[in-house]
Amino acid sequence: MRTIPIMINGLPGNLAKTIAAAAADDPRFTLVPYSLTGPDIDTSAVTIGEIKIQLLKPDARQARIQQIQAAHPGLIAVDYTHPAAVNINAQFYTAHQIPFVMGTTGGDREKLAADVKNATVPAVIAPNMAKQIVGFQAMMEYAAKTFPDLFKGYRLEVRESHQAGKADTSGTAKAIVSCFNTLGVDFKVSDIEQIRDPDVQEKEWGIPKAHLGGHGWHTYTLKAEDGASFFEFTHNINGRDIYVSGTFDAVVFLHQLPADNTQRLFTMIDVMTRESQTP
Amino acid sequence: MRTIPIMINGLPGNLAKTIAAAAADDPRFTLVPYSLTGPDIDTSAVTIGEIKIQLLKPDARQARIQQIQAAHPGLIAVDYTHPAAVNINAQFYTAHQIPFVMGTTGGDREKLAADVKNATVPAVIAPNMAKQIVGFQAMMEYAAKTFPDLFKGYRLEVRESHQAGKADTSGTAKAIVSCFNTLGVDFKVSDIEQIRDPDVQEKEWGIPKAHLGGHGWHTYTLKAEDGASFFEFTHNINGRDIYVSGTFDAVVFLHQLPADNTQRLFTMIDVMTRESQTP
Repeated sequence: MRTIPIMINGLPGNLAKTIAAAAADDPRFTLVPYSLTGPDIDTSAVTIGEIKIQLLKPDARQARIQQIQAAHPGLIAVDYTHPAAVNINAQFYTAHQIPFVMGTTGGDREKLAADVKNATVPAVIAPNMAKQIVGFQAMMEYAAKTFPDLFKGYRLEVRESHQAGKADTSGTAKAIVSCFNTLGVDFKVSDIEQIRDPDVQEKEWGIPKAHLGGHGWHTYTLKAEDGASFFEFTHNINGRDIYVSGTFDAVVFLHQLPADNTQRLFTMIDVMTRESQTP
Repeated sequence: MRTIPIMINGLPGNLAKTIAAAAADDPRFTLVPYSLTGPDIDTSAVTIGEIKIQLLKPDARQARIQQIQAAHPGLIAVDYTHPAAVNINAQFYTAHQIPFVMGTTGGDREKLAADVKNATVPAVIAPNMAKQIVGFQAMMEYAAKTFPDLFKGYRLEVRESHQAGKADTSGTAKAIVSCFNTLGVDFKVSDIEQIRDPDVQEKEWGIPKAHLGGHGWHTYTLKAEDGASFFEFTHNINGRDIYVSGTFDAVVFLHQLPADNTQRLFTMIDVMTRESQTP
């Protein structure tokens, strides 16, 4: 297989760095030595392994992109930038016919979806790239759709722990709570217990010290009113490696789309189910 | 609504007693004062609330059933008897045109399904009547079908605790393990850790003393090889009350089947999804 040229945007951000380092080591990909970055970034380049990657600020990208595309035909972009850049970056990719994986959360998601649908290149939009979490979310959505009110009369508790820097409630927790609402449970997003204190995380939760700066631990607990039944679902992710494999699957998925594909907007569910159909 | 005549077979067994007592108190039902019982039972009657229920041994049932049916038109049977009686009871119900809910596990399940399919009355066959457990199992089956190999490379641990009298491995645990196999996890039914020691149950697991004689606690733990991700699913049931509501839903489901129904064999999933379609 010819390697897929992959441009990781969002350097020198932590997640972009993790993904870029993995791409440099992965025989399926050629890591393109450029990365779109934000207007406030001071450095002009980042070295990943042995590859020096030039950072392109918003005012420089327009002048350079055609040359980059000419050097790397079939280029696919991976976006782990900043919520403020989500929509403008998506427009940049579609204007230049670059298929892309949008791993950045935030921005105007409805506009993002609409822009992709109206574009002429495909994109995978993935608020969460961890395949097992996406699968768990799909299970909960299936249950909500198939068995509404299944947990009527149950009391729900939701606890989620993330690195101290994360200010907002976990998007995954919000999506799961919405499923539980359909399953008959009275619970508000504001009832989610958010843990952001590293001291509590380490001592009470047992989160490994090495992962206090990057983790997502979620527990959903359901108790029947009469105390006779108890259900609990937990998914704990340490570090960011799990997002790498999902991101790469999405890139390969875009690369392998048949020539006559007319669908533009894909999710991780599409990526995962298409994979499972492969013999 | 006219009440539904319900015959609870398997008295004086514990689960049959629980269900019969609840049926006697439920305005939807008329508890029929007869119960099929096993050949070794010494007592001839059991009193449930204010109702004296005659126990019919196998040699007595044939002579009495027509009279019982005449007195209770529209009779529906609920079977919580003994694995050894599953097939013979099912044949008795179909021969006498009695729709039934088979809550008894064991017996020859393939023959049971075939006998029901060839019959002229409908039946709900339900190895587990707890709707939330059935829903959880359906979620896992959905995931296995939709995302095969989702947990490839994960290590699974399964622990289940039941009352000391339960000799075999939990059927629910076996069904869930089969889902995990499809999800890419290498695990054998013999790897399931079975807890049957009341001392361990009370001290290590924290199972309430009152429920040591009747409970089903299950935990499924998945760990990624690199330690970066951890998933855990738990369902703990105390006592037998949760089975009552599912059993009664199945009875009402049979009672409400449209006159032109030609399907004979139903599962709890049918009962639960049919319910959720009701406006």
